[in-house]
Amino acid sequence: MSGQRPPAVLGLDIGGTKLAAGVLVDGRLLEWRSIPAERESGPDAMIERLLGLAEAVVRDGPGWDAIEAVGIGCGGPLDAAAGIVHHALNLPGWLDIPIVERVGGALRRPVYLENDATAALLAELWYGAGAGTRDAVYLTISTGIGGAVALDGDIRRGAWGAAGEFGHLSVAWDGWPCICGRHGCLEAFASGTNIARRAREAIAAGGDGSALVALAGSFDAITAEHVARAAADGDPVASEVWDATTAVLGAGIVNILNALDPEVVVIGGGVTHAGPLLFEPLRAAARGALGPAAAASVVPAALGRTVGVVGAAAIALERMGVRRTDAQAREDREPIRA
Amino acid sequence: MSGQRPPAVLGLDIGGTKLAAGVLVDGRLLEWRSIPAERESGPDAMIERLLGLAEAVVRDGPGWDAIEAVGIGCGGPLDAAAGIVHHALNLPGWLDIPIVERVGGALRRPVYLENDATAALLAELWYGAGAGTRDAVYLTISTGIGGAVALDGDIRRGAWGAAGEFGHLSVAWDGWPCICGRHGCLEAFASGTNIARRAREAIAAGGDGSALVALAGSFDAITAEHVARAAADGDPVASEVWDATTAVLGAGIVNILNALDPEVVVIGGGVTHAGPLLFEPLRAAARGALGPAAAASVVPAALGRTVGVVGAAAIALERMGVRRTDAQAREDREPIRA
Repeated sequence: MSGQRPPAVLGLDIGGTKLAAGVLVDGRLLEWRSIPAERESGPDAMIERLLGLAEAVVRDGPGWDAIEAVGIGCGGPLDAAAGIVHHALNLPGWLDIPIVERVGGALRRPVYLENDATAALLAELWYGAGAGTRDAVYLTISTGIGGAVALDGDIRRGAWGAAGEFGHLSVAWDGWPCICGRHGCLEAFASGTNIARRAREAIAAGGDGSALVALAGSFDAITAEHVARAAADGDPVASEVWDATTAVLGAGIVNILNALDPEVVVIGGGVTHAGPLLFEPLRAAARGALGPAAAASVVPAALGRTVGVVGAAAIALERMGVRRTDAQAREDREPIRA
Repeated sequence: MSGQRPPAVLGLDIGGTKLAAGVLVDGRLLEWRSIPAERESGPDAMIERLLGLAEAVVRDGPGWDAIEAVGIGCGGPLDAAAGIVHHALNLPGWLDIPIVERVGGALRRPVYLENDATAALLAELWYGAGAGTRDAVYLTISTGIGGAVALDGDIRRGAWGAAGEFGHLSVAWDGWPCICGRHGCLEAFASGTNIARRAREAIAAGGDGSALVALAGSFDAITAEHVARAAADGDPVASEVWDATTAVLGAGIVNILNALDPEVVVIGGGVTHAGPLLFEPLRAAARGALGPAAAASVVPAALGRTVGVVGAAAIALERMGVRRTDAQAREDREPIRA
């Protein structure tokens, strides 16, 4: 397929808070739309609504005749080859759902499934912050923490599918427990959910979190974003929680560097909205370990909220044998940006 | 060079306790000899003694006419491309030593330098415990802790030369200090030197280390090997030190799996003499994280005390463009074993 225009593909993103669909044509995201996930409605209703969304973006885009394949990104654990979501941790009731069969039956196109972090890595590698690199990792800090690895331009899943499972890097061998049964995992401390939990615990334990509660509206409404904002304003409880968060994440990033040493560490997910408050300490950790070039390699994801759909579409292209250079071939394309 | 016999090469291993030399011909280690490093004598005297050792193994082996190149393995930091040992941490006085120029001038052959852990990985990948795999990591637990990474059969040094720097994986983000300036690094807790130090500290702090002292002959003579043996015998102080050691190393190995997920984690270095007392808890950690197949992938190095010389020779072959299949081509060769 070298030198040819890549096919138009539909990308579908199944997330815990929203469903999204978009059409990628010739390296450009033509249509993009998202709706609330309403995950409590369960997989059947969610899949119906996702198919409706797909219909809408294709109809308002290039039409079905142009769509050659469909990519789906979803949280794991899943079996990409078999096309089955085994147990999406952020989606209640998603147990052994044959999503590829369901979507393929409805849309009559080849359908490819991938872990959402892996799809996001491919999107960033082809069209975003990893463009121009061959060895890249993606670290997502969101409700959970996940990641993926590309080396020599190809996604690397590892011998047991665990490559890039950065949420379970341990930086505290006898520290906080994780649902995985081990201790000190990044996710159990520094995911968005756990940043907010730790702030609430610090307040409940007697910390003066009045500024944080005021910012959030109520104790129960505190999120990681509130913690970051209150820390920026100098709130002591929020600052302590935030500083420990960035120290733990910094240790995780240095572990990634000392194991994989990629050209670029692309960081995405909702917690990156904290901006320099997150990136400055992470870069300082990388600088302390490996110097300024390593610090500069720690960069925010470029694709923002479209990353799930672009990644799912890129996965479809990749599985169809389209190479990165062809996917990027259109010289006059606009860069994809959030 | 495909299908041809690989050239005969001389491997030189510069270690903190011994110097070794050997000749690798057609995938077999023909001659191998080692002498005490006498590292206090400094680089000039050490290099002279190493050259004498090289003369002896070549003279008693295939003779100089057969030797096409020389590989040198040494502790880092070093600049492999420039052929300079910048500051071998385990060798006093080795500061910016142009070892390739020195050895090449004396032996009149092309000389190639490599970090000893990287050389050991290549030896294990081509001739040892990693034979038959393409994605392998090497973890050495010795005076220090180091490592190296191979993917798709090739050594991966990383963007800043830090790939496989497993001694500085942190498993305690706010724990024990490391000479690197960070906290909780594997090496600063679980290297042979630090295992022994922690045992002495536990005794000095009031622990009943009488069995350990008796085993070692004296308090000051305690080594990691004594700690392992006393732990096997149920000594409480030694058991506590050893169990913490294997827990920390287990967390490190799980971090390697969650980042790289290689087919095999080959573990070498003096501390592996502890045998199942080391490998059983490490495999249990891998099993707990990724299941029985991952546990089985944690294996001891196969080449034993010859690994440094075989690795140095393999590095010379690799730099000369010999591929693994050619290096292994001789069908009737004996496997290299310790």
